[in-house]
Amino acid sequence: MTTDAKYARVAIIGMGLIGSSIARGLREADAAEEIVAYDADAAHLDRAVELRIADRVEASIDAAVSGAHIAVVATPVGVAADHVVDAARRMSPDGLVIDVGSVKAAIVEAARGADAAAGCIVPCHPIAGTEQSGPDAGIAGLFRNRWCVVTPLERTDAAYLAAVERAKAFWRLLGSEVEVMDAAHHDLALAVTSHLPHLIAFTMMGAADDLETVTESEVVKYSAGGFRDFTRIAASNPVMWRDVFLNNREAVLEVLGRFTEELAVLQRAIRWGDAETLEKSFARGRALRRAIVEAGQETDAPNFGRDG
Amino acid sequence: MTTDAKYARVAIIGMGLIGSSIARGLREADAAEEIVAYDADAAHLDRAVELRIADRVEASIDAAVSGAHIAVVATPVGVAADHVVDAARRMSPDGLVIDVGSVKAAIVEAARGADAAAGCIVPCHPIAGTEQSGPDAGIAGLFRNRWCVVTPLERTDAAYLAAVERAKAFWRLLGSEVEVMDAAHHDLALAVTSHLPHLIAFTMMGAADDLETVTESEVVKYSAGGFRDFTRIAASNPVMWRDVFLNNREAVLEVLGRFTEELAVLQRAIRWGDAETLEKSFARGRALRRAIVEAGQETDAPNFGRDG
Repeated sequence: MTTDAKYARVAIIGMGLIGSSIARGLREADAAEEIVAYDADAAHLDRAVELRIADRVEASIDAAVSGAHIAVVATPVGVAADHVVDAARRMSPDGLVIDVGSVKAAIVEAARGADAAAGCIVPCHPIAGTEQSGPDAGIAGLFRNRWCVVTPLERTDAAYLAAVERAKAFWRLLGSEVEVMDAAHHDLALAVTSHLPHLIAFTMMGAADDLETVTESEVVKYSAGGFRDFTRIAASNPVMWRDVFLNNREAVLEVLGRFTEELAVLQRAIRWGDAETLEKSFARGRALRRAIVEAGQETDAPNFGRDG
Repeated sequence: MTTDAKYARVAIIGMGLIGSSIARGLREADAAEEIVAYDADAAHLDRAVELRIADRVEASIDAAVSGAHIAVVATPVGVAADHVVDAARRMSPDGLVIDVGSVKAAIVEAARGADAAAGCIVPCHPIAGTEQSGPDAGIAGLFRNRWCVVTPLERTDAAYLAAVERAKAFWRLLGSEVEVMDAAHHDLALAVTSHLPHLIAFTMMGAADDLETVTESEVVKYSAGGFRDFTRIAASNPVMWRDVFLNNREAVLEVLGRFTEELAVLQRAIRWGDAETLEKSFARGRALRRAIVEAGQETDAPNFGRDG
């Protein structure tokens, strides 16, 4: 399969934000003859049919992937490993199973247990999303100009290397840039750029929730002072994020250690009125934001352009 | 002065994001015959004239506020208290001096030292802004549908109560909702909704900056995983924020204590694999975000609508 041919059949396991965005992206690119969907939630499947982003739905993973050329597992990390192995065991040897989870070492580990079927498993992570969930939340262009990290198994057989190339082609078809790295490094990098930010945003919600002196109504009214920025990622799917933290414990605790060290430095500077440390530390944000805007990963409109 | 009349002369001390937004808002509402500007940075004054948001500029606060009916002090909190007192001493007894700082107890304290002139000082805080700075960053509608908190001095004389009403009318003219509260409560509420979020965002920049194992290029590329949301407020004016933390130390340290308690709970849950605590805690974000969207303080478009 090259990007100028059509997939005869794509199976999508999990029709949430990511699964339904993939379905929409394939539709937009007219890249699949047939999209077959499975979801543990039957209402999601009904909705996928109504939205015409699935041609057919199945009540089991086995039935959904049977005869598919590519199976995409887009379920929370806690169950994705089992789903990947189940799907791989039903695929033909030249099939391809990819997942989309935010933690990759667990998938690589599970794939090792799939024996012969492991040859069609290519763990992937498209770094894109929104705070919304479910089949209606999907966006065809969600992956466009975003990075997708591919973390292949440690295999050098030609068939596997070809499968990795097919996985890369799949993401490029959806508009992504692709980067290959090992799973452990991915899990550490994402702990910094995604997992810790979510943990901190969730923590901020808890801190605001439990106050005796400031009411929720005040938090809501005065949220434009900065708090509202944190609520976007804190509104993300709780089950998905629970699984991320349970499956990337070591890396998250490591970067959390760095975060709390840095916080202790600023806390001390506030307590002792150390103006120089505060100003110097605060000046770093602008350069980093500029780099992210220049890399096309962020808008340069003030307030993300949301007030315009 | 009522909202259906025009201010004959408004003095604006500080032509940064907030000062220049006020000037633009007054222009848009056609609410001032003359806007006189002062800024410690002469380049800001030149630019204010070029942008036609000041009719006249002056090289001192005294000269700028002389003959003005209302003086707006929009300088960083560290110098604003002095500027407010200086301005008040030059105003006629029926004049009005307001500031816009994110910490109010320090201004109330300083106003007490202004003796007779204190009668025209009404401390204010419009809860609005962007991550950008300087005269070019101003937006006419910045204060529209945002809250402005007014923290009057403890005075009950009729002349002062009239000044408070004039201050409220000024913000309503710019489109704000107005709430009156005491300065200490304001400083605590804003520590939650604004100061702590900024501190945490600055901390996150520092934590990402000092890593040996993950490169800045990786942080930039994979920032769509959540990190980029923090960079907006971390790109705010470092001097302004230094002054906020130096002037609201107790309240910030108090809410920071709540934050670190909450973080410790989540850290322990991750370490021990406590799925229930994680999921339960993560579920709080959606309700809070929904309340903020419903209150008109946030967009409901996914990703703040910035990817659309």
